[in-house]
Amino acid sequence: MKVKNKAWGGRFKNAQSKQFLEYGASVGFDQKLAFFDVAQNTAHTLALAKAKIISRAECLKITKGLEGILRELAEGRFVFSADDEDVHMNIERRLREKIGPVAGKLHTGRSRNDQVATDTRLYVRDACRKITGLLRGLRTAFVFQAEKTVDGFMPGYTHLQQAQPIRIAHWFLAYHEMFLRDEARFLSTEKSADVMPLGSGALAGNNFGIDRRFTADLLGFSTLSQNSIDGVSDRDFASEFCFAVSTLFVHLSRLAEDLIIYSSSEFGSVVLPDALCTGSSIMPQKKNPDLLELFRGKAGRTTGNLVNLLVLQKGLPLAYNKDMQEDKIPLFDSAEQALSSLPLAVELVKGIKFNEKILAKRLRNGYLTAVDLADFLVLKGMPFRSAHHLVGEIVSECEGGGIPLAEIKLDALRKKSALFDASVKSYLDPTLSPDRKKGDGSTARGEVLKQIKRLKKALRAK
Amino acid sequence: MKVKNKAWGGRFKNAQSKQFLEYGASVGFDQKLAFFDVAQNTAHTLALAKAKIISRAECLKITKGLEGILRELAEGRFVFSADDEDVHMNIERRLREKIGPVAGKLHTGRSRNDQVATDTRLYVRDACRKITGLLRGLRTAFVFQAEKTVDGFMPGYTHLQQAQPIRIAHWFLAYHEMFLRDEARFLSTEKSADVMPLGSGALAGNNFGIDRRFTADLLGFSTLSQNSIDGVSDRDFASEFCFAVSTLFVHLSRLAEDLIIYSSSEFGSVVLPDALCTGSSIMPQKKNPDLLELFRGKAGRTTGNLVNLLVLQKGLPLAYNKDMQEDKIPLFDSAEQALSSLPLAVELVKGIKFNEKILAKRLRNGYLTAVDLADFLVLKGMPFRSAHHLVGEIVSECEGGGIPLAEIKLDALRKKSALFDASVKSYLDPTLSPDRKKGDGSTARGEVLKQIKRLKKALRAK
Amino acid sequence: MKVKNKAWGGRFKNAQSKQFLEYGASVGFDQKLAFFDVAQNTAHTLALAKAKIISRAECLKITKGLEGILRELAEGRFVFSADDEDVHMNIERRLREKIGPVAGKLHTGRSRNDQVATDTRLYVRDACRKITGLLRGLRTAFVFQAEKTVDGFMPGYTHLQQAQPIRIAHWFLAYHEMFLRDEARFLSTEKSADVMPLGSGALAGNNFGIDRRFTADLLGFSTLSQNSIDGVSDRDFASEFCFAVSTLFVHLSRLAEDLIIYSSSEFGSVVLPDALCTGSSIMPQKKNPDLLELFRGKAGRTTGNLVNLLVLQKGLPLAYNKDMQEDKIPLFDSAEQALSSLPLAVELVKGIKFNEKILAKRLRNGYLTAVDLADFLVLKGMPFRSAHHLVGEIVSECEGGGIPLAEIKLDALRKKSALFDASVKSYLDPTLSPDRKKGDGSTARGEVLKQIKRLKKALRAK
Amino acid sequence: MKVKNKAWGGRFKNAQSKQFLEYGASVGFDQKLAFFDVAQNTAHTLALAKAKIISRAECLKITKGLEGILRELAEGRFVFSADDEDVHMNIERRLREKIGPVAGKLHTGRSRNDQVATDTRLYVRDACRKITGLLRGLRTAFVFQAEKTVDGFMPGYTHLQQAQPIRIAHWFLAYHEMFLRDEARFLSTEKSADVMPLGSGALAGNNFGIDRRFTADLLGFSTLSQNSIDGVSDRDFASEFCFAVSTLFVHLSRLAEDLIIYSSSEFGSVVLPDALCTGSSIMPQKKNPDLLELFRGKAGRTTGNLVNLLVLQKGLPLAYNKDMQEDKIPLFDSAEQALSSLPLAVELVKGIKFNEKILAKRLRNGYLTAVDLADFLVLKGMPFRSAHHLVGEIVSECEGGGIPLAEIKLDALRKKSALFDASVKSYLDPTLSPDRKKGDGSTARGEVLKQIKRLKKALRAK
Repeated sequence: MKVKNKAWGGRFKNAQSKQFLEYGASVGFDQKLAFFDVAQNTAHTLALAKAKIISRAECLKITKGLEGILRELAEGRFVFSADDEDVHMNIERRLREKIGPVAGKLHTGRSRNDQVATDTRLYVRDACRKITGLLRGLRTAFVFQAEKTVDGFMPGYTHLQQAQPIRIAHWFLAYHEMFLRDEARFLSTEKSADVMPLGSGALAGNNFGIDRRFTADLLGFSTLSQNSIDGVSDRDFASEFCFAVSTLFVHLSRLAEDLIIYSSSEFGSVVLPDALCTGSSIMPQKKNPDLLELFRGKAGRTTGNLVNLLVLQKGLPLAYNKDMQEDKIPLFDSAEQALSSLPLAVELVKGIKFNEKILAKRLRNGYLTAVDLADFLVLKGMPFRSAHHLVGEIVSECEGGGIPLAEIKLDALRKKSALFDASVKSYLDPTLSPDRKKGDGSTARGEVLKQIKRLKKALRAK
Repeated sequence: MKVKNKAWGGRFKNAQSKQFLEYGASVGFDQKLAFFDVAQNTAHTLALAKAKIISRAECLKITKGLEGILRELAEGRFVFSADDEDVHMNIERRLREKIGPVAGKLHTGRSRNDQVATDTRLYVRDACRKITGLLRGLRTAFVFQAEKTVDGFMPGYTHLQQAQPIRIAHWFLAYHEMFLRDEARFLSTEKSADVMPLGSGALAGNNFGIDRRFTADLLGFSTLSQNSIDGVSDRDFASEFCFAVSTLFVHLSRLAEDLIIYSSSEFGSVVLPDALCTGSSIMPQKKNPDLLELFRGKAGRTTGNLVNLLVLQKGLPLAYNKDMQEDKIPLFDSAEQALSSLPLAVELVKGIKFNEKILAKRLRNGYLTAVDLADFLVLKGMPFRSAHHLVGEIVSECEGGGIPLAEIKLDALRKKSALFDASVKSYLDPTLSPDRKKGDGSTARGEVLKQIKRLKKALRAK
Repeated sequence: MKVKNKAWGGRFKNAQSKQFLEYGASVGFDQKLAFFDVAQNTAHTLALAKAKIISRAECLKITKGLEGILRELAEGRFVFSADDEDVHMNIERRLREKIGPVAGKLHTGRSRNDQVATDTRLYVRDACRKITGLLRGLRTAFVFQAEKTVDGFMPGYTHLQQAQPIRIAHWFLAYHEMFLRDEARFLSTEKSADVMPLGSGALAGNNFGIDRRFTADLLGFSTLSQNSIDGVSDRDFASEFCFAVSTLFVHLSRLAEDLIIYSSSEFGSVVLPDALCTGSSIMPQKKNPDLLELFRGKAGRTTGNLVNLLVLQKGLPLAYNKDMQEDKIPLFDSAEQALSSLPLAVELVKGIKFNEKILAKRLRNGYLTAVDLADFLVLKGMPFRSAHHLVGEIVSECEGGGIPLAEIKLDALRKKSALFDASVKSYLDPTLSPDRKKGDGSTARGEVLKQIKRLKKALRAK
Repeated sequence: MKVKNKAWGGRFKNAQSKQFLEYGASVGFDQKLAFFDVAQNTAHTLALAKAKIISRAECLKITKGLEGILRELAEGRFVFSADDEDVHMNIERRLREKIGPVAGKLHTGRSRNDQVATDTRLYVRDACRKITGLLRGLRTAFVFQAEKTVDGFMPGYTHLQQAQPIRIAHWFLAYHEMFLRDEARFLSTEKSADVMPLGSGALAGNNFGIDRRFTADLLGFSTLSQNSIDGVSDRDFASEFCFAVSTLFVHLSRLAEDLIIYSSSEFGSVVLPDALCTGSSIMPQKKNPDLLELFRGKAGRTTGNLVNLLVLQKGLPLAYNKDMQEDKIPLFDSAEQALSSLPLAVELVKGIKFNEKILAKRLRNGYLTAVDLADFLVLKGMPFRSAHHLVGEIVSECEGGGIPLAEIKLDALRKKSALFDASVKSYLDPTLSPDRKKGDGSTARGEVLKQIKRLKKALRAK
């Protein structure tokens, strides 16, 4: 490879090592920026014309050339070559092939430092928008399922031990809250990405008096970066994005864990849609929750991506350093994991079926109303700590005798405390327990319905 | 240790292993929540009285007891005991010592699950407020320094190679931008923490009709959590906090790196304040930038904390699991790193002295106006790519002959291109280069002054 | 604080900021090196005497002083002061208090750089030895349990779906293998730590001709570091240690996950020892597997520590940098997590009780011999892929009709394939399946017994 | 996609979602295992024949078919299809196309669980061998450079402050030590990978009496896994590999950092080979150390990979879970980063040129012999701490007066202490300082030469 073909070749006496050029070429991954790069090129060309750096005729020639490239990209005909280092050089090279040396004017008043920062922000902004759309779909699926399961009951777990009876809808709504926060994080990240660094040049600004606000308007950026050094070296928006994806996958991993356990033969609480499970190559009876396991595993992958990006930035002197070229690898991978996983998560949530028969039986045979029993005593005036301790003893004896809490006799209770009376019966029924829960966000029917109504309205409103 | 002393001891036949109880005790670290726990206890007591779960007299007795505990905490007289597992039990035990069995009513309508979630949110909200205050101080220091250095010049670097001349003020403002974004992240995290889960009970809500809005108002929470399962298991606000701290330290590590390099004998660009440096135990001539190195190192520590917290949450089934007890270790450590580092960062930034004499000489002897030279040709009509290549050759020849770019003769230039004329001289002067940079955020004097004015106004406004 | 009291104060004109000195002081955490530091000091003193840098009398005086300090440390009487920066200065200060100015000779021919590297290696070597001892105890517990459960059966799981019948002993032995590898990693890390950097001085070696081999022998180091720059800057052994701990906790987290699920009411496969479980402060019926959850959570903590340490080292120029002071925080924490968790893991494993009655019933009612059925057909000549597919259909029909695989009639099978005959019966019995598994490491009785015998012999041999 | 084409399709009533199948398909990345999979298939076929599960004729047919596939792979003609999930199914499908239904017998006595574990181990073993070879080359380059630079001097740094004079060779040898440890880690990882799990079946072993030792010999495995559950679920070797790569890149990042700083204009200590640097697209004078920056950045990438892999495994129940499918992504990426970076690192190290003229001047003008001066006093009997303090004052005064330490007058020294005499002169000469350093591993000429000789011998020996 001859040095002089390189955009920066003038200064060098010896040729670069071929192996090194391949090693440093980013076009293998940054070609995903191609559409954004063409958009930026077009906007920049118009700005150059506006600033009279290029003539109207030149402007027309360049933008038409870019249009042709856009078509080639859209139709999958554009051929990227590793000889041209990165996506920017590939597009510029192709432009030169199409329109001749005037293509060389496109890079005026711009450095690859501000160029790539701008493309990457366009990418993140776009990914955020797609992801928030998908998250809204996912939230809709949770609310839809909640609506269908308001009158189903299941044990709520803490420490994976049966704790208290809850409405199935309440379980669905718990996940809704997580993804609602995720959506907020992506909206906030979109805003962080929505700042245009173009015009920062290599790091000091540019010499050509280009109207940055004009370019920003063409590209739909709300604000301009306010310091050119920071403009080319800031990757906070990318870290934020990777963090938001990590957190999203932490949530998906929790959903996955719940459902993997619930759909085991032993729990049998949930049936997963066949369409999202696989079998075993050797054990024909298996129905494996592969999708869920992949969601769970990808919490590792996306956390790895976040670490990659943060470590990469640690200790970098100002301004741009080549280390930052690799920011795109974790960034794009995290985006792709989110974008490919969320549609399947929607399909999954829609397809979840709780086995209400098994769950009802489980509730009846358990000790899930122990707290209610303690609360009964508290309402009769016993201090909570004493009530709690007394009920602990009762449960222990019941368990010893194999008696579910719902079936304990009043006599037995009264032996423990004279505060018990016939009204205690309703405190022992697991299906009556949820409605006794008070306050916003509880598992009581009224509260759950209120949530659903509120959420449906909010989802429609957008 | 007798089992029956434990809050949850009623059910157990065999005593817990002493070693295990010590292992599981969190009071060693969660005692940092003590003040918040007392505040919450007080608010909860008033809410219990409002809901008539306890009498006015009981309420008075409990709140007075809590007041006494507050004093003990403030005066460092409160003795935490590992026998009482966690901070909550320690405080309740002390309350019982002070006011007798009525203390047992305090835990009514509440679980440690929603209690600790509430305390932790109060902690994070408080830490965010302190950190944003410190960040404002840090930003003020940068703006102050910028104001003093508007007319100083230094080489701007990319790849740690001299790139273009910049104003020293512009370098200070670049860091200002980073910490401004950090401040925004902590403000946003404060909002995420500002949601009260109290009332969620163990996971299903509580049986006592406590007015959650009333408690929230007392504790200054803006909103209530909307799902009790999520209320006790959500730690997103903690992850966000740790992420914000990680990013803050990535920024501090970059500042550190720049200054460590600038203050080396070889660069000699910066003199650090004696008050923030140390010597060597064996090499008397050394002046070590320990503070900066610690800032840089803590990027590792705080990223480790973030990883800890995210991994901890991965794959946890709903709702509360004991794993989550350890969320406080990375959380508190990240908070403490930020809170202890920022005041020193302020002191540091105030004390930075650039050696303008050395820097001026460096600029004169370098090739930092090469881009300006290329831009000169572009403005004369040469396509950028050709101009860039030609200037590359010029620089290469200058370097070979040991001639700084500013001293190249017009004749020599004209041999390269007839486009050069006498007006090129000003393009070769490194101190004239910055003002040629156009547009918002550039290193031109006017732009830098505009930034400073805008930032001073904004800082005053708050 | 007066500068001249600092070991390195001579060069400085202005006093250090008090806040900065506190911030940079490491004695808060590096005091854990105190015993190792005294040991090193003693060995170094003897080496100084041997090299005639100090007189025999001085040597005696210093070593006696150090002996006194050792006693103070052992009896908890030694008072560490943050005024003295780090553990080394604390001990030297105390020595001066005890024996006067001759204490100042102790630091001859040594820098804190090689001093702290040596202490840290002693610490890691010691921790490795303790951990490998504990791991051997843990492995013994697994083998002991395996021996007791050779004739118990349970479903083996993949994807948390019942897969094939295995011996309970085989499950125990699977974990044995993990911890055996952990032990090997700690042995290997011990070797990595077993290299003495003392004598490297600040980075170039020392001027005093101290016999490094002599000191190493006194401290029990097998080898000497071979490059003084690397000697003071190498922390690979610490990274290795943190990695080994991380992997150990990944294993503990898997054990925890299995047992948390197995001990849920729904699985009911395992009863955990009361002594290692806790109750709930509000739900009296709960028996929470806190210990297991803490093990699982600490996989996050120790992975965070590993990340901390690796990030801290990234991009550090040679040789020592202050960033490295913080290596001790993740290192010590990981060591302490391992050292405190392993004894409880031993207690746990000893106390695990499988509910064989429930498991036997579960095996009978499942489809765990489906592979055996397919293998039957293969042995009759059907290609595996066809056999697998046919059995898939049979299982599907059984499930539809609620018939466990063990109860399917021969007629029904023969309708599917004429290859079935009466001998198929034994292939459907889950308790006969394990012994049909061939080869080293399978779940067949003979193989399991062979393993146990081999492991017991190996454990005794050490 | 029809379900019945899937290897595990028999049990399912509804078709899998196309999107889900694409999502779960691993052939996009696991095709890198293709060669290893064919090798394993061949060995397994021979073992099936030996066990008389298949006839000699069938064996011949299958192995010939596999040979054909091998050729297709080698010639890049093999077409992988996402319809066939993973690399194993692709190869089996192709085999069926080539030799008909007998291909279906290949999967007998094997599950994809043990199959993929075996392939992955073959991959890691192979990568380790290649990497250790490359590391040996890298070490050779360091030793070669050391040999050439034994008589060159440079400042050794701590805290990036000039500390003591060292031989340039000593700096090269410091890095040699790091990569020597890396080599040891890859050798150890190779051993960890060198254990064959094949024969573990899905998790319980296999029904066919296949001779595992026979297959292992064919594949060159030294040992057999000793527990079939662990055999399919162990990924420790992959974690170890990723850790070893992370540590390797921590070392490369340190080398990079040193060289980036040394090759800045301000330091000017090092000239990097043109062949491994790039220019700027906008600043023609730049010579950017891209390769070094990429090395440094990849410390982030490979640490991210390690985190990915560890998190992925956290909390997985036994045995195989689909999460583990994604182990290959970080594993392969880390391997590829090491394999592509090391040859360039060799080229780099060979091409490093220290500018000895600049360095000599720097040494003369500095204060690098301050320790020597203090040691002079110590050898005259002054306690080290006092000597150190006195020299600190001397240096401070010299600096104030702009006098390099080497030029201080004896009179001036004697004013500070009567212990100074004419013999002090040689203690102030930076080029005499290194040879005064004593003991193994010091920067003295004799020690450095001893190291070089020893290392050359060791490198030849292998």
